[in-house]
Amino acid sequence: MSKAKALPLMETDVAACCPPLDERALTPEEAERAAAMFKALGDPVRLRLFSQIASHPGGEACVCDISDVGVSQPTVSHHLKKLREAGLLTSERRGTWVYYRVAPSVMASMARSFSVSG
Amino acid sequence: MSKAKALPLMETDVAACCPPLDERALTPEEAERAAAMFKALGDPVRLRLFSQIASHPGGEACVCDISDVGVSQPTVSHHLKKLREAGLLTSERRGTWVYYRVAPSVMASMARSFSVSG
Repeated sequence: MSKAKALPLMETDVAACCPPLDERALTPEEAERAAAMFKALGDPVRLRLFSQIASHPGGEACVCDISDVGVSQPTVSHHLKKLREAGLLTSERRGTWVYYRVAPSVMASMARSFSVSG
Repeated sequence: MSKAKALPLMETDVAACCPPLDERALTPEEAERAAAMFKALGDPVRLRLFSQIASHPGGEACVCDISDVGVSQPTVSHHLKKLREAGLLTSERRGTWVYYRVAPSVMASMARSFSVSG
């Protein structure tokens, strides 16, 4: 029980989400999981935030590091929450700020979606 | 002029769309292009249609080949149009049916988005 609790749920979901899209028809469950991630990235501002965090030195960034996406800081925070809820980012509060990084295995799982099978 | 016209516009866009997301912050223009593709895949039914077409023998399928996504044929056609408009599928009419296949370079470009740079 405590072992199951220690396992981050979203990470598991992400790892299971993404068979190569040209390998076979996705099941409804696989499609639900993967579509939720694509949907989160399907907004230009959220995609720019994701790329700012993914490319930030050390692989993490706080709202204070985000620049020039043309929306207010509360809107940035709202979009970061959406990305986190979709399992794409993880967050950790340290002092005043919440730091975001790309969730483990997201890049590899998404790359696998588009790897050409067979 | 005729040469420029011969080049499929969407294909060019897709090829230009997708620098690795962890390489640098996307420009607004790159984010617009890539987000449009992610948004099109951000629906479970569209994602299942995409995977059915991508995994179909010969790499192409018509509406007549699509099975079991739980929506009517007109709705399937509507979703396929959205995927085509996003540059993810190409289509060709042959006889009674329109055949869809994954647009050239889509799999490679999207995989590149999630390749780990550096």
